[in-house]
Amino acid sequence: MISTNELDFIKSRLPFWEHMTELQIRNLETNISKVTYHKGYNLHNSDHECLGVLFVKSGELRVYILSEDGREITLYRLLEGDICIMSASCILNSIHFDVHIDAECETEAFLLNISYFGKLCDQNVYAENFAYKSTVERFSDIMQAMEQILFLSFDKRLATFLLEEIDKNHSNEIHLTQEQIAKYIGSAREVVSRTLKIFQNRGMVTQSRGIIHVTDREQLEDLLL
Amino acid sequence: MISTNELDFIKSRLPFWEHMTELQIRNLETNISKVTYHKGYNLHNSDHECLGVLFVKSGELRVYILSEDGREITLYRLLEGDICIMSASCILNSIHFDVHIDAECETEAFLLNISYFGKLCDQNVYAENFAYKSTVERFSDIMQAMEQILFLSFDKRLATFLLEEIDKNHSNEIHLTQEQIAKYIGSAREVVSRTLKIFQNRGMVTQSRGIIHVTDREQLEDLLL
Repeated sequence: MISTNELDFIKSRLPFWEHMTELQIRNLETNISKVTYHKGYNLHNSDHECLGVLFVKSGELRVYILSEDGREITLYRLLEGDICIMSASCILNSIHFDVHIDAECETEAFLLNISYFGKLCDQNVYAENFAYKSTVERFSDIMQAMEQILFLSFDKRLATFLLEEIDKNHSNEIHLTQEQIAKYIGSAREVVSRTLKIFQNRGMVTQSRGIIHVTDREQLEDLLL
Repeated sequence: MISTNELDFIKSRLPFWEHMTELQIRNLETNISKVTYHKGYNLHNSDHECLGVLFVKSGELRVYILSEDGREITLYRLLEGDICIMSASCILNSIHFDVHIDAECETEAFLLNISYFGKLCDQNVYAENFAYKSTVERFSDIMQAMEQILFLSFDKRLATFLLEEIDKNHSNEIHLTQEQIAKYIGSAREVVSRTLKIFQNRGMVTQSRGIIHVTDREQLEDLLL
């Protein structure tokens, strides 16, 4: 059973709460569980059954697509407070593609199980509407990721990524390997390595074992003009 | 004013009809107009105001994204009976990207104007749900187009396109220029030209002024294995 505080957290993330019946709310409480995923755990792919809706409490989930030869393209990442709807995509009849979801670090979440959520969406148009609306919100993220991949030259993509990371971390240090960065922005390690070397020669970054220091933010921003 | 037959056509495409009030239905009838777009007409882009929801009666609309340097990536095409929701995307608060919509040939449609549809979605959760659901349906098309662009080798993409065209046309002839094909599948004319020449040398297609004849369907299909 989850605590009152935890239930409040979930309530704050479900805008259709006031449109739920007392029975639906009571059943919700008994269909929520706490889950913890270890770093690297693959919690959703094309073979898995659908889990349900995840409410991220701490950590990070990464949603990506995978080609037959194993190339990964990151669509978006989910952080504390975010809701993962693609892990419930089997109840969205109009979704006909497969995504993969990995925990990028130790991640705690609340899981609203799929059989409850499926029934709720059948019974309550506000819940169904929430599911589709949440999907469309991610749709915009995905389109932006795709546009970057298709249209931006690689140095701009890497500069955008580095700037987003230091903003997110509130620090000029980025603790990611070239391999990880390549995965995040849908490229190859060699291309990341080559471009980082160019950035380093221009004095924008320095690199030491697994850490990238952004030393000249303005120059990176100038790349995006 | 539109005829009873025409209203039936629209009704058949709105699954939430039974959840509309009499007033909403009466207002719908006075907020629908018939529109005709000439071939090549750009009916939606990032500068335009939102038009509203379009119900395609005949012809073809193409939805695409455009890069700063003018490259086009086709997301999907809409044919007779299809509904265009992206021309009403301004009422979907969670859509933050711009698409362009062109008429690919003379196209007739019914237009449900945006101010009526916006109000309807505010008042009627079933209408709002329909709007988001229709968007998510297209989302799947878009993901498939993107996956093809990102992951498939070009000969497979071209073979897939040619096979879809002959199925759609119920004919082995495709009346499209190499330039048009390049636009549809997000490539360059030169790449299309080169690959078609390879297909021709292998006896899969023949080409004459603006027409491609598929002469060996099975060989094209074998490319996709």
